[in-house]
Amino acid sequence: MIQVAVLGYGTVGSGVVEVIETNKSAINKRAGAELHIKYILDLRDFPGDPYEDKVVHDFDIILNDPEVSVICETMGGIHPAYDFSKKALLAGKSVCTSNKELVASHGPELIQTARENHCNYLFEASVGGGIPIIRPLNYSLTAEKIDSITGILNGTTNYILTKMDKEGAGFEEVLREAQEKGYAERNPEADVEGYDACRKIAILSSLMCGKNVKYEEIYTEGITKITAADFKYAKQMNKSIKLLAMSRDTDRGFFAMVAPFMISREHPLYSVNGVFNAVYVHGNMLGDSMYYGRGAGKLPTASAVVSDVVDCARHLGKTVMCFWENEDVQVKGIEEDNGKFFVRVKADRREQAMAAFGSLAEINVGIAEEFAFMTQVITEKEFNAKIDEIGGCINRIRILSA
Amino acid sequence: MIQVAVLGYGTVGSGVVEVIETNKSAINKRAGAELHIKYILDLRDFPGDPYEDKVVHDFDIILNDPEVSVICETMGGIHPAYDFSKKALLAGKSVCTSNKELVASHGPELIQTARENHCNYLFEASVGGGIPIIRPLNYSLTAEKIDSITGILNGTTNYILTKMDKEGAGFEEVLREAQEKGYAERNPEADVEGYDACRKIAILSSLMCGKNVKYEEIYTEGITKITAADFKYAKQMNKSIKLLAMSRDTDRGFFAMVAPFMISREHPLYSVNGVFNAVYVHGNMLGDSMYYGRGAGKLPTASAVVSDVVDCARHLGKTVMCFWENEDVQVKGIEEDNGKFFVRVKADRREQAMAAFGSLAEINVGIAEEFAFMTQVITEKEFNAKIDEIGGCINRIRILSA
Repeated sequence: MIQVAVLGYGTVGSGVVEVIETNKSAINKRAGAELHIKYILDLRDFPGDPYEDKVVHDFDIILNDPEVSVICETMGGIHPAYDFSKKALLAGKSVCTSNKELVASHGPELIQTARENHCNYLFEASVGGGIPIIRPLNYSLTAEKIDSITGILNGTTNYILTKMDKEGAGFEEVLREAQEKGYAERNPEADVEGYDACRKIAILSSLMCGKNVKYEEIYTEGITKITAADFKYAKQMNKSIKLLAMSRDTDRGFFAMVAPFMISREHPLYSVNGVFNAVYVHGNMLGDSMYYGRGAGKLPTASAVVSDVVDCARHLGKTVMCFWENEDVQVKGIEEDNGKFFVRVKADRREQAMAAFGSLAEINVGIAEEFAFMTQVITEKEFNAKIDEIGGCINRIRILSA
Repeated sequence: MIQVAVLGYGTVGSGVVEVIETNKSAINKRAGAELHIKYILDLRDFPGDPYEDKVVHDFDIILNDPEVSVICETMGGIHPAYDFSKKALLAGKSVCTSNKELVASHGPELIQTARENHCNYLFEASVGGGIPIIRPLNYSLTAEKIDSITGILNGTTNYILTKMDKEGAGFEEVLREAQEKGYAERNPEADVEGYDACRKIAILSSLMCGKNVKYEEIYTEGITKITAADFKYAKQMNKSIKLLAMSRDTDRGFFAMVAPFMISREHPLYSVNGVFNAVYVHGNMLGDSMYYGRGAGKLPTASAVVSDVVDCARHLGKTVMCFWENEDVQVKGIEEDNGKFFVRVKADRREQAMAAFGSLAEINVGIAEEFAFMTQVITEKEFNAKIDEIGGCINRIRILSA
């Protein structure tokens, strides 16, 4: 019998309880032992809930119970999640988390603490919801040198951009609708500004490098400036616009970025629509592979947390492999990165733009006041200098190379 | 130091040696020990090859060397691969294989032998080439009850069908071209008749059930009857035609099948083109997820074999989890399966077809001699009876439900 405590009885926490209950026999078989929810930590009481007698308000009850061997941290946020996780690991209790903020900010430290205390700090649910991606990176792609990861890692923004694409609607309008449907938070900043995707690509990038990629060093741009007109141009170019989180280990150094990108219809990420997420991985032997599924939601995310619990149950007293050392990766400044850009300038800047960018491809969707074009490959620094030179642009969107 | 032997120095075997050499430092770090190729078994000699001094012709040299702990079986075929694998496992040496025929026919027995001898029989490379799919099923989706798997599992047929779709070409013509380019064998039967995909879905289905799905019991239909005209109709319906290998665990029993299917543009498998493979998995908590990548080829397949070697190295003396009991799953006869069909009949059968099928949707691409339509959901048995009733059809293709 494996005694489990759940921290936070919100969406994901209650999902964990539901998954363990619903798939009991399959899960216990795979865990090699019966999983039993002993405690649920929450500030609130849940009168009438079938698990109301498991609810406690004091973390120390869990910490001091030697029977509890696995803790699911589904609270989110840094405090008190960090304190609880750290104390649990120091007491030799494994922690399985869906908390991307905490993993992105304290991952290597907590992994190290787990290792020193012969337990595990696992975080499959922190990226891509229910999509198995952490374990494939750690356990499956072990013969690869992974050189790039490109992900659609935020369901809210992907839902918004998909709607804008299919319906020709504007950002504000679609955001409002997403909020009404519960697909976007009332305060949508973490999603629409790309902060959520930034935490997630920091985690994946760290696993790719085996060292720490600090999320603060990843250039992050949201989707709030994307308009219906941008999608008109995209369609004309047989492309769509997606918020991509990417990192690349190149001869010129390590680059990472979160930003909206124009992406071609032929790219497998093009078809990742609505609340779905996907992670596109390039390895030096395997080439391209992709992992696709529901990036959020109660049961998918909880399923990933429970898969970590199963892993813990099968490795009691043993730390499973995870290479994420507490040594920082040198992330290159974005100004040295390069690529092609889609650009819209006022119509009267046409001559200047043509002079500044030399070789460019015009795109026309019949908006008379504008001149729109695609650049050649150029560094971010050069690009910005040229845009300054011609007195600014209406909008510019990076283009994903095929 | 982990001493490794490779059985068969063909495409995949030489790839294994290349992967271990190229990614040496990353692989050894993950394996927790240095991997060293000690022997290569082949009937041939390889004068001038950097590994020529490792080549042996007698399997007993490997079997009797107590230093060898992991064997990569990349020979293919049942004999002598079965004998060699069985003897190795009985001697406590782990076996990592890319041999789908052997896994599909003797999987549970060899897994059981490995368990009894505290070693491992691993087969990540046997399905989907380099796509991590066996390990995600065994290690990641552990909180799920998986209820269906739908895969594009054969690169040759997917290449042929993609070409026919994009270029409007006929089957024979594209097959010839694929043979010239080395994408299809000179004897293409195993691919184009669906036998290869059948072995692979048998393996995935067995892992889904935890019991043995016999490949002989899976209804298998190839792509040789698909014509350019079928693709014309598909296009008209915003669909493509793919060879799908699928299994479904339903209230009515367990169904499995390999056959060409019409598939909608909205389905994630629609965009899986050329030599790429993908496995689409539905779990009761997670919903849909998909695993995509190169389904064949020297280095991708070898990368999967080496990931198994790494797993063995990390679990010396211990058997990793794999539920595939030697108890047969009752596979339902195809006549009880149901779905929609696309059907082409001679134009003079129009009235009869309309009478027999009642509600149907006509599809017209301007072929005057034909009447083409889509049925409602119907069992295979009823469908065949109705087709007999109207005196046969020109062709019929199943339609994947959304």
